[in-house]
Order: sequence, then C-alpha cells, then structure tokens
Amino acid sequence: MKNNFHTVAVARLRQFTEQVFLAIGCSQAHAVLAADVLLQADLRGIDSHGTARLSGYIRLWQQDRLNPTPNIKIVHETATTATVDGDKGLGLVVAPYAMEVAIRKASTYGSGWVAVRNSNHFGIAGYHALLAVKKDMIGYAMTNASPLVTPTYSKERMLGTNPICYAFPAGQHPPVVVDMATSAAANGKLEIAQRSGAAIPSGWVQTAEGIPSTNSHELKQGGALLPLGGDKAHGSHKGFGLSATVDILSAVLSGANYGPWAPPFVAYLEPHPNPVGEGLGHFLGAIRPDGFRPMEEFKTHMDNWITRFKQATPIDSEQPVVIPGEPELQAEAKRKVLGIPIIDSVWNDLKKLAADLKINAL
Amino acid sequence: MKNNFHTVAVARLRQFTEQVFLAIGCSQAHAVLAADVLLQADLRGIDSHGTARLSGYIRLWQQDRLNPTPNIKIVHETATTATVDGDKGLGLVVAPYAMEVAIRKASTYGSGWVAVRNSNHFGIAGYHALLAVKKDMIGYAMTNASPLVTPTYSKERMLGTNPICYAFPAGQHPPVVVDMATSAAANGKLEIAQRSGAAIPSGWVQTAEGIPSTNSHELKQGGALLPLGGDKAHGSHKGFGLSATVDILSAVLSGANYGPWAPPFVAYLEPHPNPVGEGLGHFLGAIRPDGFRPMEEFKTHMDNWITRFKQATPIDSEQPVVIPGEPELQAEAKRKVLGIPIIDSVWNDLKKLAADLKINAL
Repeated sequence: MKNNFHTVAVARLRQFTEQVFLAIGCSQAHAVLAADVLLQADLRGIDSHGTARLSGYIRLWQQDRLNPTPNIKIVHETATTATVDGDKGLGLVVAPYAMEVAIRKASTYGSGWVAVRNSNHFGIAGYHALLAVKKDMIGYAMTNASPLVTPTYSKERMLGTNPICYAFPAGQHPPVVVDMATSAAANGKLEIAQRSGAAIPSGWVQTAEGIPSTNSHELKQGGALLPLGGDKAHGSHKGFGLSATVDILSAVLSGANYGPWAPPFVAYLEPHPNPVGEGLGHFLGAIRPDGFRPMEEFKTHMDNWITRFKQATPIDSEQPVVIPGEPELQAEAKRKVLGIPIIDSVWNDLKKLAADLKINAL
Repeated sequence: MKNNFHTVAVARLRQFTEQVFLAIGCSQAHAVLAADVLLQADLRGIDSHGTARLSGYIRLWQQDRLNPTPNIKIVHETATTATVDGDKGLGLVVAPYAMEVAIRKASTYGSGWVAVRNSNHFGIAGYHALLAVKKDMIGYAMTNASPLVTPTYSKERMLGTNPICYAFPAGQHPPVVVDMATSAAANGKLEIAQRSGAAIPSGWVQTAEGIPSTNSHELKQGGALLPLGGDKAHGSHKGFGLSATVDILSAVLSGANYGPWAPPFVAYLEPHPNPVGEGLGHFLGAIRPDGFRPMEEFKTHMDNWITRFKQATPIDSEQPVVIPGEPELQAEAKRKVLGIPIIDSVWNDLKKLAADLKINAL
C-alpha cells in the first residue's frame, strides 16, 4: 500500500489548528495553547498525537463531551499537592494549567504534585513535563486513557496505553526525556503497520480470546494491546504494574474514571453508563534539582551521564546508543525546516473538518 | 540438578541475622533493622534479596567498603526535598532513615522526596516504600545498582537492575505494591535457571558480543542483562528509559556514582578507580493521598480498583489476574507459618559466616 502525504509548513498548520479551536468557541489563549501542544507532537515526530487527532477532539465537542470554555480550578490542595478539576475541557489546556500549579509549588517548597480529574486526552506527555524543564526543574507527566490494554492473564481491556514521561534538564546537552506508553507498543505503531500491511512483532497484541497475535488489525476484531513485556516470561506483569501506577495516580487520586471506566477518546464509543469519577485523569509533577544539590553540580553530572551513555560500546558501530529524547529532537530539527508530513487520510479528515466548521482548508 | 534446602523458623533466622550484624559492630538498633529488611525479603519470597545476600554485605565490611557505625545525615534540604549521606553504611539502614525524612516532610507539606548518596545495597525496594504505606501515604523507592544491564543497541554493561517500587494504601484490601527490576529479568531469576540447568527465555540476556542468548550462565561469560522489553521491537528502549530515570534520580541528583561507575555489590570486584560520586544512590518518596482527596474516598476507590481488576475476565479460568503485591503477601502468609527455605549453597555460606564471625551457626 502506498503512503501518500502532503507536507505543510509548521506556521500554516499551527494557524489552521488555532482556527479550528477558535471555531468551536475556545478562547484565543486556549486555542493557541492547544494548537501548540498538537504542533509539538507533529514536530517531535509523534504523528499519532498531533493534528492527526484534531478531528477527534472536535467530534467529542460535537457530542457535548468536551467543554470549549472550561472553568479549570483547584478543588483540593496542600502546600505541595493539589487536585485540579478540568471542567470537561481539552486536556491540551487543562494539563498545562495543572503543571503551572505544580511548578509554582515546587518553586516555593522544592516539589509540587497535581492530580487532574474531569479532563480529556492531553496530547503528548512530553509537552507537559518539558514545561518544568524550562524552569530548570525535573518534570513528570502521566495520564490514563481509553481501555485498550489487558492485565497479564486477562483478555479484558482494562487499561489505556497510560504513558509516563520523566524529563530532566541538563547543561550543555539537551534534556533527557523518557516519554513512553506503558503498553508494549503505542496504538500509533499499529496504525503504521496497518497502512503498510506488515505483520507486527509478537507480544504487542492478543486476540479477543487472549491468544498472542501478529495481526495489526487485531484491535478492531475485539483483541487488545499487551502491557510492556508482552507476556509473563518477558515481564508483562511489570508493564501491567506501571500501567496500574499511572491509572491510580491519575484517576484514583484525583477522582477521575479509572480502569475500564476511563472514557473513550473516539466519539463513536459511548462513555461508561455508571462512571466511578469524572472524565479522564492526569498526574503532573515538578521537582527542583537544587533541592538536592547545587544546580551547576547537577547539570555537570547530567552532561557527564549523557556523554558517557552516548559512548557506551555499540553492538553495531553504525547504531550508537540513543539517549531518551534524542529522536524527537532530531525530528523537530528536520520538520521545523521541511514542514510536517500529513498522510492522505488525515489530510482528507482535516479538509472535511474545515468544511464542517466553515474555516479555510489547509 | 537437585535443589536441597533447609527450612528455618523465621524467629531463628532473624536472631541469627541480627547476631551477624552485631558481630561486625552494628548498633543493636541497626542490627535489628537490617535483619528486618532481609527477613522481609525472605518472607515475601524474594529469596535473592534476603539472607542469601547476608555474606555479601559482610564481605564488603571485611574489605573496609562498608561502615557498620555510619553517621547518616541530611546534607542538603528544602521543605520537601533532601539529600542524605549514608556514610558508607548498610543501605538496609540508610534507606529507612531517608524514608523517615520523606515521611516527616510529607506529614507537614503533603509530599517528601529524599535522594541518598554514599550508600550500599538497600535490599528490597518494597520494604522502604511500605514504610510510607504504614503511615497511610503512597511510597516510592528506587535504587541504582552494580552495572549488569546494557542500554538498547549497546554491548556494554552500563546500568544496574535498578528497581522501582510504588506502593499504595487501600482500605479493606492489602496495599497495591508494584516492585520491579527495570531489567527484563532480575538476576535472581537467572540464578534459579542456573540451578535447574534450564534455558531462559529470549530477551533476558545477550552475549558479550551483543547477540541474543538463552544461556543462564551468559553473565559469567561477559554477557549482560537486557532492559525490560528485551529488544527494540519489544520496547527495550522503554526499559532503558526507566532504568536511566532510576539512575538519574538515585545518583545524579544525590551525588552518588551513576551508570558504569556504580560500585559492585560483590566484594571480588573492585570499585571504579575514578568515581564520579560517593557509593550507591537511592531515591525515596512519600505522598499523602489526602493531599488530593479525602482519605476515605481514596481508600474506597482503591478497594474498588482492586476488586474490579481481580474480576477482569481471565484467559484461563484457573489463572485470575494478579494484583501487584499479591504473590508476596501469599508467600509471607505461608512462610510465617512454615519457615524460610534456604538452599544448600546459602546454608553452607551462612555456616561459614558464623564460623568466621565466631557466632552460633543456624
């Protein structure tokens, strides 16, 4: 199968995305922020979480499941902890609000932690964690998500791909950014395989009956994604444990829906009729490295850590060790200049979106 | 190969272990605490981290690499963060000290985070995280360790098995305890395979040249453990990212040795001649759930989370979903009554230890 795509300049795609959010009633500030989160995903090469998702958010709005003018507020707090209610707003703007609260608390007390309820898909975790890095802090960001992943030994979809991001500022080097789904593979990787028609590695998905599969279309046939590790022998109980941690911190702590109650992102699936909380949940945090040692010492040793790991003896001299965050930076450097590639199906989706909302198409 | 073992009553093994620590000059309080950490590992079925390691600590002391009377102290702090210097003491006593600091800070400010340097192997991460759970807090514990694990694409041992533990208090149910090495398999699992002579699953180890292997003896031949995920297609870059996170939080933040500089636990390997910090590092944290929502609400939803996940449809009706922490509790219930099984090689090791230290053997 051929992958046709259109290349769009970053500024043009950003402007279009802002127009879409303005058209559904978002404030100028929220439209700019939400577009920035999606554009960062596109720039960083995480195509599944960028403007490819734009129409998904709009469909939720069309069904009255997304509030374009949310009253985002703190509903519970201590010196270093808080719960934020997102008022059914875009996670793209709710999460940065919550991260600013965490950063403010960390500025005063050394660390700040914010659980979020009544939110929605927040885009890439890395965007939010990097807000802390810009303030010379370590950033944490995680979110629960629509149930697609089974616990070890189960055939029932109970968890989202529940990403975790840890981001660390460095000195001369760019930050170390660990940004990962806690499933063996993110849904975006399946979509790439679906387009090429290729088989996927074992350990990514299982059938509706719980049998290991290499069919990239398995999810559409009632199958499920597997936790990182794939099966018990390869540590899927660890992936399940990490995913459970994300679910508990994001949703049990905040009062959002957890596990199989997490609301679906796709508008054609109805939310659970008996919710256990409100919307989706996130968990964001900021820690000041200078709460532990002088900042210059920390940065010097971060640089030394990065330099040493880049020099770790490679198996193949052509493929050196990749520092977490490097591939995203390389994509960003390239796409800033060359523009964002948008595949045909997304291109047509965005064209239809423009017509629906009566704004200029790309 | 036959696995002969001796079964020892918990109280007897505890008393013996305390005697060993007293014999090297530990205070009564430290001997009791260090023995408690090792006994908890044995009780919880994590045999590789219990009294099987006792002679390892003593050999470090014999080489003057372990201080039995450390002056453990806070060397840097803010309201919610601190760095603790372990003064070359047993990690078994340094980590609980640091966790108490984290818990104290969390009591006042909602959360507390302590990085530790100049420490040593701290036993099971779960012991320390559960200290927070006893105070109705969420506990975090992680540590870096002797380099045995390669980053993705490398054949050089750069990281320890770097465990992470997250522990969550519940209401009617026991706590959820996610306690996991960030490598595909912990070293203890290799040792079990070595004793039985069985091949190990692919994705656990590679040869010195970086070729995947199923030989449980590979480490002794210069090979290495692999990060969780095993290979790139199965997400080993995620395991590497998690392990890197543990290394940075435990050692770069605290001023301990990180990556390939982390000191070996085994006394027959010399520490790095040019260290970048002091000893091993840990990172411990405590967060109050009632910093986010009322405690009773949190516990009610934790119980509901656990109940629902236990009921997740199993693939095989004989094997239900396992909640993180359940297997350890089951082992504990059994071993409290039946005693601790000690395999022949460890039994002989402990007998020799008793003779060396001139105390009564088991």
